[in-house]
This record gives sequence, C-alpha cells and structure tokens, in this order.
Amino acid sequence: MATSASPVDGKRIWDDLMALAAITDPEKPYTRRSFSPRFLEGRAWLRRRFEEAGLAVRLDTGGNLIGRLEGGLAAEPILLGSHSDTVPSGGRFDGPAGIIAALEVIRGFRDQGYKPRHPIEVVDFLAEEPSEYGVSCVGSRAMAGALDDAMLGSRNAAGETLAAAIARIGGDPGRLGEARRNSIEGYLELHIEQGVVLENSGVDLGLVTAIVGIARVEIILEGAADHAGTTPMELRRDAGLAAARLVLDVAAKARGFAARGRGHFVATTGILEQQPNAANVVPGRSRMVFDIRAEDEALLQEFLADLDEHSRTVAAGQNVGRAAFNLLSRTRPTHCDARLQGLLEQGAARLGLTTMRLASGAGHDAVFMARIGPSAMLFIPCRQGRSHTPEEWAEPKALEAGTMTLLEAVRALDRGV
Amino acid sequence: MATSASPVDGKRIWDDLMALAAITDPEKPYTRRSFSPRFLEGRAWLRRRFEEAGLAVRLDTGGNLIGRLEGGLAAEPILLGSHSDTVPSGGRFDGPAGIIAALEVIRGFRDQGYKPRHPIEVVDFLAEEPSEYGVSCVGSRAMAGALDDAMLGSRNAAGETLAAAIARIGGDPGRLGEARRNSIEGYLELHIEQGVVLENSGVDLGLVTAIVGIARVEIILEGAADHAGTTPMELRRDAGLAAARLVLDVAAKARGFAARGRGHFVATTGILEQQPNAANVVPGRSRMVFDIRAEDEALLQEFLADLDEHSRTVAAGQNVGRAAFNLLSRTRPTHCDARLQGLLEQGAARLGLTTMRLASGAGHDAVFMARIGPSAMLFIPCRQGRSHTPEEWAEPKALEAGTMTLLEAVRALDRGV
Repeated sequence: MATSASPVDGKRIWDDLMALAAITDPEKPYTRRSFSPRFLEGRAWLRRRFEEAGLAVRLDTGGNLIGRLEGGLAAEPILLGSHSDTVPSGGRFDGPAGIIAALEVIRGFRDQGYKPRHPIEVVDFLAEEPSEYGVSCVGSRAMAGALDDAMLGSRNAAGETLAAAIARIGGDPGRLGEARRNSIEGYLELHIEQGVVLENSGVDLGLVTAIVGIARVEIILEGAADHAGTTPMELRRDAGLAAARLVLDVAAKARGFAARGRGHFVATTGILEQQPNAANVVPGRSRMVFDIRAEDEALLQEFLADLDEHSRTVAAGQNVGRAAFNLLSRTRPTHCDARLQGLLEQGAARLGLTTMRLASGAGHDAVFMARIGPSAMLFIPCRQGRSHTPEEWAEPKALEAGTMTLLEAVRALDRGV
Repeated sequence: MATSASPVDGKRIWDDLMALAAITDPEKPYTRRSFSPRFLEGRAWLRRRFEEAGLAVRLDTGGNLIGRLEGGLAAEPILLGSHSDTVPSGGRFDGPAGIIAALEVIRGFRDQGYKPRHPIEVVDFLAEEPSEYGVSCVGSRAMAGALDDAMLGSRNAAGETLAAAIARIGGDPGRLGEARRNSIEGYLELHIEQGVVLENSGVDLGLVTAIVGIARVEIILEGAADHAGTTPMELRRDAGLAAARLVLDVAAKARGFAARGRGHFVATTGILEQQPNAANVVPGRSRMVFDIRAEDEALLQEFLADLDEHSRTVAAGQNVGRAAFNLLSRTRPTHCDARLQGLLEQGAARLGLTTMRLASGAGHDAVFMARIGPSAMLFIPCRQGRSHTPEEWAEPKALEAGTMTLLEAVRALDRGV
C-alpha cells in the first residue's frame, strides 16, 4: 500500500511502538498505569521523541503531554493524539498507536518539507483508561472543562486524591482553566478498532460515525435465601431464577434493538452476583450490572425505560422484589464530524485503501474533544478484536496505512479543503 | 396437648435449650462451631445435664458424647440423639432440640419410674454440620464405619487435620473401630423440619419417610471474554447467557420431576459465578454448582443424565463450550424404618396429635445410623421454615409434643411392641 514516495515510514512507526511497549512493568506486560513511575518513564521517552521531531513540548495544567509544531498562520490548532497509559496487562496499541501515528504525521511533513498553516499539536492525553481514582479520560476532560471537583476529590486505594496525583505528575489542578480549550480547528485520532468488524469485513480502515452513548444500570433482586433441600420448588422466592430470566430477556431485546438498523446497539450483563452463593441455599439476592451502548440516543432511552418496566415484571413473575434500579453512569452518543470523516475517506481513497463507516462501541478521548470542536476517529483493524490484553495486535501494514490516511486528512484540513 | 400426667416437662426442655443456646460466640449468636472452645463448653454443660439425669457419660473414639442408661436386659441399645454443633450464626434448635428431647425422655422415664429393658443412649454426634475440615456428620460416620482416611486427613484453614482435631477434643482417631456399632435396637431423632410443609399444613408432627439423596454437580461453561462495547450481539460467545438458560431449564425440569408424584424433588443453582465479572466485558466463563435432591433414587439418576445431555445442548446453542461436568458429591436416598415410623405415628395418635409423612430434604446423622440399624426421624414445625439463622424458631408446645411422641415411641420400641 505504501508507495516509495510515501512520507510515512512504517518501520519508524513500528520501532517507536515497540520501544514504548518495552517500558512496562516487567512482571505483567504491557502495563503502564497512569500516574505510575512507569507511566512517567514512558512520557519521558515520548517527550524526547517529540523533541527529536522538532516539537515544542510542554505539560498543560491538566497533565496532558503536548508537542506543538507552529503553523504559518495565527490560526486555531489541529490536535492529533491519543493516550499512553494502559490497563493492567494491556496491549501495545490501544492508545500508543494514535500518538505514534500523530508523531509520524509530523515527521512525514518534515521529511516532505511540508509547512502547515495551522499549528499542529500532538497530545498524549492523561489517564484515558479508568484510573485508580475511578475516573477515566482525565486529560481530555480537563481540556473540555469537564473535570469537576467531585472527580478531582476522588481517591485511590492509598488515599491520594486525583488532584494530588495530577499535581504529582506535573499538572496544576488549581489552574485547570489554563488547560481548557475553547476552539480548535479539528481533532483526529487513530485507534485500533477493539472489535472484529473490520477484520471480518476485510476492509482496510474504519471511519467512525459516532462513539456510543453508554448506560450502566445496577439491578438488585431480593427473594428469600431458603434451604435448598427442604423448600419445595413452588414455595421458593429464588432471586437467581429471576436474574437468569432478566439476563436472557436483556440479550434478546438487545438483539431486537440492534436489528432495527439504527446503528450499533449492544447490551451486556457484565456483572452478576448472587448471595449467599452457597450450594445448599436458594439464592436470596442477585445483583446485576447491565452495560448498554447505543449510537442512537433515542434507542438508548427506550431501552432503559423498557428495562425499568420489564425488570419489575420479571421480579413479580418470580415472586421476588426489585430492591434497586440504579443508573450508575450515563453518557450520550458522540457524533463524529461529517467533514472530518469525509477528509479521512478521501485520503484513504487517494491511497487506494478501502473504508467503511462504523460506530465505536468503546469510549475515547474524542468524546471530550468533540465538545470543543470538530472531531473524528480512524480505526485500524486489530487481530480478532482482542484488546486490553497482551495479545492485542495490529499489523505493521495497517498502522502504516492508517497513518498515511491520517496524514492526508491532516494536510487537507490544514489547507482548508 | 400435654396432660397433667405427662412425664414430659415442657419448661425443662425449653430452659435447657435456652441454657445451651446461651453458650455461644457473643459476637454472632448462635454459634458453637464443632471443635471450637465454645463447642467444648457446650459439651461440658451437656455432660453435667446427662449426669444429673442419671446417665453414665463417655466420649467414644469418634468424638461422640454419649450418655447411657443401662437396661434390664443384655440387649442392643436404643440410640436417641442429634448434634450440638451449629453453623456460623445458626439457630438454637437445629441439633440441640433432638439432644434435649432425648434427655427429657430419660428424665421422663425416671420421673415415671419406668425401667427400660434395653440400654438407652443419648448421643451428641460430633460435627454434624459441615465442619472446617470439609466433612459433615463426622461422629455418625465414625459410628457407621464411614469415616475414611481421606476424610481424616483433610485439613482446616490452619492446617490441622480432622484426625488431629478429633484427638484434640478427646476422641481417638487411631482406634475408630471402637466407636463403630454393628447393631442397635433402633435410632430415633427429633429435629426441626427446616422447611414449611408442616407449618403450611397445620399438622403437629412429621414422620420422615426418607432422607433425600443429594447430588452436587459443577458445570463450567467457557465462551469468550469480549469487549462489551465493540462486540456485536451476534458475534458473542457469552457464557453468562448460556448459564442463565441452564439455570432456568434446571428449575423448570425440577418442577416437572416434583410433579410426578414420586416424592420430594428439588434442584437449585446455589452457586453461580461468572468471569471476569466486569461491567464492560462479555462473560467468558460461568461456573455453576447445582444441588439436586430426591426421595426416589431413579428420579435422581434420570435427572443427572438429563442434565449431562441438556447442558451440552444449551452450551452448543449459545456457541460456548462445556468445559466441565463434575459430580462433586452424591448420596443415595435413605429410607426410614417403617416399623419405627409406625411407632412414632401410634405414639402421636395416642396423644391426639396430627401427623403427616414427608421426606427430609436435608441430610442428618440418621443417614449413617440407618446403615447400622432401624432408624427414623420425627419432625416438629419451625417458623417459616427458617433454619441456619438466628431467627430459627420452634414453639415450646411443638417441642413438648414432639418429645412426648418420642417418649411414647421409645417405650413401645423398648417393650418390643
């Protein structure tokens, strides 16, 4: 796919990714938890690579590492980036691929002698993954003015607040306003798909239409923890049976919602726990956490209303009580900018790469960047959709193709095409 | 129900039960775990009460506390009893009721001037409840020659073997043969029902026809722990969905088996655990432990064969693998002696008490006593069937009625009626 004239160097991308991956907890590769010494070591390496590429590097008050290339005009910046932190025992691509691709765009421009009109900033957003402080997308939230005092006050297991942690790694939580952006020319992020749609379709690249809205709902059902030997079937108030009914019904309804053709829709009973969970006792209590994701806000609302009603019905049918229905968290879908999607599509077409539009089922920093200005994401395939695991894998050719497309789109955006 | 001429003193029974209950871990009444200092304190109290009733008290090599009243003939003994150990935060009646009722029979005979022909032994069986060593019915197993080396070698969390624990509380695990009985005239045990059948029926006493056979089956289903956001519904291999289907089907089939009119039949998914059990991950693995109990051995066999086949079908239907089907434990139903049931029934009838026949859904020391000689159990109602909880409750009148019936049956057995 890469031509001999390509400004993108696939080997340089790969070598950088592997070098960053080598900065890991050696006991459980690949681990660079946000705020950890290893994370700071990774950032020190990134800072050097940014500087070698000619970028002016700084840390903003929200703890984002930013490398900036000045533009020819006094214009709003184009932001590119992703995150360098990982989940425990994560992979080498989720996050770093987007940063190294952005860095390669800068190096490609330099190698081509291309002088951008807009400033271009490569951003390593702080703590995109769920941090030890219970907050994710810390840096992009800060940039969008969405990192509130409650989040800043949340503590890790050692009792440190998120604010103290941000200060510890070089941010300034008392002056978060300085990290806030009100206007950008655009934000583009390359990321592995973390799903199997591209691989199954044999398509080179994914143009992200939207990042799903996510609702997390906790439902608790209460029955009676009776003796499993002495309580006849018809006299039981088995919370486990009611939970099983609800788990099956949620999956069946989700399949129905997905089939309506209104975009990505999934629902999962990720957490299911019953008490007392002893072999000889009828389950007296069941707790479930449902994760529901939709590209279409109206579908998400409809599903939640239905879940509220249906869970009551299922509980009543099994003679148990619905003790709780808690909305644990809720985000709306984020729609990617149509013009930026078009620029990515045109860039891929120029390179002879195939594309398809798809939604992102996972959250990303782009959710918060979209609050500031036009934002879009480009997905590259990853093997078997595996992510958040050491087996996470993207082909070097896919990384190169994605980076080339990103470069084309950034140039078009810079030129105001 | 008690007549003024009754040899049974309801207040004496109640006061004894409450006195024994007071010997508890004060932090979590009612707890007298087998082998614990509190358990030994309870036994010291029982020993004194046995001696005050004129019994010769000893500990057999299996750790059973036995109070013996000699008979007029050189005959096989009649054994009465139950257990004084409890589950953690258990009740005041499960176990102790049977010991104190047996003791009251002895005191009643003494008060009446009745001299039995057969020796009568009141037994506090060691560790009927699941002990910290993973073995239950320790003392009755020893008496039946069913406490094997593997059981004796099993250790508690502190690393002590069951053999060492038996020696520590005064038994002699190297000479278990001395505890073994080959022949008894009969064994009778009064126990709370631990179910709601008597209470719901408004019947005074239950004549136990059989103690159910119990099978414990572990089934593990393996799917794929995919990302809950990015994996479309139709591409999932959700072990949680397969487990939910199996849980519902097991309950439905158990209701069908119970409806066949071949005695007590229940099946319970007491344990259900899924992994990784995280909100944003499709369950990749589910583990269930099913507890299946039947009065009819053939039904139990049929159900197990069906569960083996059906669990494969369910797994295949959800595109997951059935990684394990393990029979964790298996006992056959124990049928109570028809003649002893008749003696209990006649005794109750003489006292004007109503009776019904029912199976015991819980295991008891009588399972092992039935291997030695004719054995039967008498159930008294308990409030709402609650057991293994501090709220466990039996009415003083029910205890008195049960004890009077027990006394009548023992006298009839002694006379060879």
